[in-house]
Amino acid sequence: MAGVSVDEAMRRAVTLAARGLGTTSPNPVVGCVLLDSDGTVVGEGFHAYAGGPHAEIVALAQAGERARGGTAVVTLEPCDHIGRTGPCSLALVQAGVARVVIAVPDPNPVASGGAATLRAAGIQVEFGVRAQEAEVGNIAWLTSMRRGWPYVIWKFAATLDGRSAAADGTSMWITSEAARIDVHALRGTVDAVLAGVGTVLADDPRLSARNLRDGTLAIRQPLRVVVDSSGRTPAAARVRDGAARTWIATAAEVGAGPDGRVDLPALLAELHRRGVRAALLEGGPRLAGAFLAAGLVDKVVGYVAPKLLGAGRTALVDAGVTTIADAIDLEITDVTQIGPDLRITALPRKREA
Amino acid sequence: MAGVSVDEAMRRAVTLAARGLGTTSPNPVVGCVLLDSDGTVVGEGFHAYAGGPHAEIVALAQAGERARGGTAVVTLEPCDHIGRTGPCSLALVQAGVARVVIAVPDPNPVASGGAATLRAAGIQVEFGVRAQEAEVGNIAWLTSMRRGWPYVIWKFAATLDGRSAAADGTSMWITSEAARIDVHALRGTVDAVLAGVGTVLADDPRLSARNLRDGTLAIRQPLRVVVDSSGRTPAAARVRDGAARTWIATAAEVGAGPDGRVDLPALLAELHRRGVRAALLEGGPRLAGAFLAAGLVDKVVGYVAPKLLGAGRTALVDAGVTTIADAIDLEITDVTQIGPDLRITALPRKREA
Ligand SMILES: NC(=O)c1ccc[n+]([C@@H]2O[C@H](COP(=O)([O-])OP(=O)(O)OC[C@H]3O[C@@H](n4cnc5c(N)ncnc54)[C@H](OP(=O)(O)O)[C@@H]3O)[C@@H](O)[C@H]2O)c1
Ligand SMILES: NC(=O)c1ccc[n+]([C@@H]2O[C@H](COP(=O)([O-])OP(=O)(O)OC[C@H]3O[C@@H](n4cnc5c(N)ncnc54)[C@H](OP(=O)(O)O)[C@@H]3O)[C@@H](O)[C@H]2O)c1
Repeated sequence: MAGVSVDEAMRRAVTLAARGLGTTSPNPVVGCVLLDSDGTVVGEGFHAYAGGPHAEIVALAQAGERARGGTAVVTLEPCDHIGRTGPCSLALVQAGVARVVIAVPDPNPVASGGAATLRAAGIQVEFGVRAQEAEVGNIAWLTSMRRGWPYVIWKFAATLDGRSAAADGTSMWITSEAARIDVHALRGTVDAVLAGVGTVLADDPRLSARNLRDGTLAIRQPLRVVVDSSGRTPAAARVRDGAARTWIATAAEVGAGPDGRVDLPALLAELHRRGVRAALLEGGPRLAGAFLAAGLVDKVVGYVAPKLLGAGRTALVDAGVTTIADAIDLEITDVTQIGPDLRITALPRKREA
Repeated sequence: MAGVSVDEAMRRAVTLAARGLGTTSPNPVVGCVLLDSDGTVVGEGFHAYAGGPHAEIVALAQAGERARGGTAVVTLEPCDHIGRTGPCSLALVQAGVARVVIAVPDPNPVASGGAATLRAAGIQVEFGVRAQEAEVGNIAWLTSMRRGWPYVIWKFAATLDGRSAAADGTSMWITSEAARIDVHALRGTVDAVLAGVGTVLADDPRLSARNLRDGTLAIRQPLRVVVDSSGRTPAAARVRDGAARTWIATAAEVGAGPDGRVDLPALLAELHRRGVRAALLEGGPRLAGAFLAAGLVDKVVGYVAPKLLGAGRTALVDAGVTTIADAIDLEITDVTQIGPDLRITALPRKREA
């Protein structure tokens, strides 16, 4: 194979890293490409699942002696601690790599220090190549590590006129099967799915990641979390079935906010402690309102069906906004047609205090 | 210029026709390209404004003697009646054209017969070239002529969660200036703008087509129609200013439906009689609901702002739907980003009786 540039190699490493999305948590996704001194690719790897070998170890095993004197191109600063696998920094030193090019530094206080160890061993270390792409690919993990609580995605489904149910309460189905399959895929990329007890009482959802066609469960299931101040979730609720772990998060366990309800920042801190890096908030409208009012939503994914109802429940209530100047501003980052529906992805803009 | 095919010429004619959109009503838009016997373009024209020369006349004047023995390619069947301008069929005969290629037949009982006249004079007449494109370009006029009432476009503006005002009633502005400029452009393409008296009482809108930057009025103003069963529009309402003609359509004048309110089919029939081919229904939510419930909306244009409110008035009420299975189904035909907002265009699907 002809030699590739470090920039090319990083692009490839970012693509490799993405293959781990949804299975590496609580670890980040990482990709690594090893080049020999001629720029020939001699090893590739990505972190595939928590507990499995890190990207650098996979790539080094492939390269063997050819790594000596070469360049390791890696999306995240190599780890420096002895966790479930040995420190990658040491493995790179032992393999005789001459140079390590890193997209993004590790914000994890336990794992970081990799660059320092490499430099101490005389290896040339560079940061910042394709940093933005690598950052986007790892956004949930990086965000949650930097601030200590999960990256929260609010998902909703509504008609073009903003209704999530008809006047008589019926809502099956607002969106198409294609959109619902997409939601199950989204569930497969997060570590926890959250719903308010209102939704559990009204709809009795399973909240598991399933193949909608044949009903089979995905191998990896996110933790199901019911936000339920006083523990009203029925014993027979489907969310308590054996399909996945479930946590009924009560105010007694988590702590209560000023309104006596589950304290949401405390809830998120506890989820982070339990290894949750990305969480999908599936509603309902009231819990979503509380999250948005508190500025705890990082991303909005709205499935908008080409339907009009003119009556019935709205997708969002009580978001703490009373006048137009205080509306929660978003920036639309993607609009994709999913079957007949639109999936609109948006990021809340930072609000001035 | 090298010879062009009849198909190419029709594409050009459809493009030319579109230049008349908004200024030809109550006439259709029409484009015409004249080819000599070698397929060289010898004349082009479009119908620019009601009362002005028809497309064929403009093209024939350009071509002069070169039209003899050539082909006229025209988006709509040439008229056969002596209106404000002479019949185009006769002009084509007199110019000695050998062949006329037409995209769409004229549904207008007064104007049609052009093809018969041409054939009687020995001219070869063909229909159907690029008929779908020509149909789309003339959809409002063709639809209204075929069924006797205007093509109705419902426009609304809302947040991503379907609100058209905040809890305290403020709504300036839900959408961006770019979106509002787009709405004024849309007003410039229709013959009438409709609003319910509720909107007039609440917002006192001007409903004129203006340059939003400097406030100057567009040269051509649509008729402003307030749907106002009992004539509650205040004498000082802005909609009565001198910027454009205004019709306060009361139940006494138009007729009343079973609920005592303005009868909407009768209203549309009267608008058609007054020469309105395309009408823009600008709300509010209740009048829009009544139009949708009656199946009187041909196209939906929603301006969706990347904002969340979680409370406040919704964009649509009382559309006659109580359960999800009866939702009004649309087909999304276009999604365009207008500034930060999305403009979603959709067509109601035909409903089974
Ligand atoms: N369209 C969609 O995408 C979608 C998605 C999900 C649900 N839904 C619909 O939403 C409806 C339920 O709506 P909902 O608003 O009643 O239910 P919800 O938002 O699921 O649950 C609200 C409840 O969560 C509990 N909660 C605990 N801590 C809270 C906090 N800090 N802030 C706010 N709430 C807290 C409260 O009950 P306690 O005080 O007892 O804890 C509250 O009443 C269902 O009918 C469902 O169909 C729609
Ligand atoms: N987001 C948007 O795009 C948008 C656009 C426009 C307005 N708005 C908002 O909508 C609010 C007004 O809402 P609204 O629903 O009260 O006003 P509306 O829809 O403008 O007007 C409703 C009124 O129209 C009259 N009407 C006459 N014939 C009717 C018929 N056949 N069916 C239904 N109504 C008929 C009725 O009053 P009579 O019985 O007295 O005739 C009825 O109360 C305003 O505050 C405005 O800000 C929003």
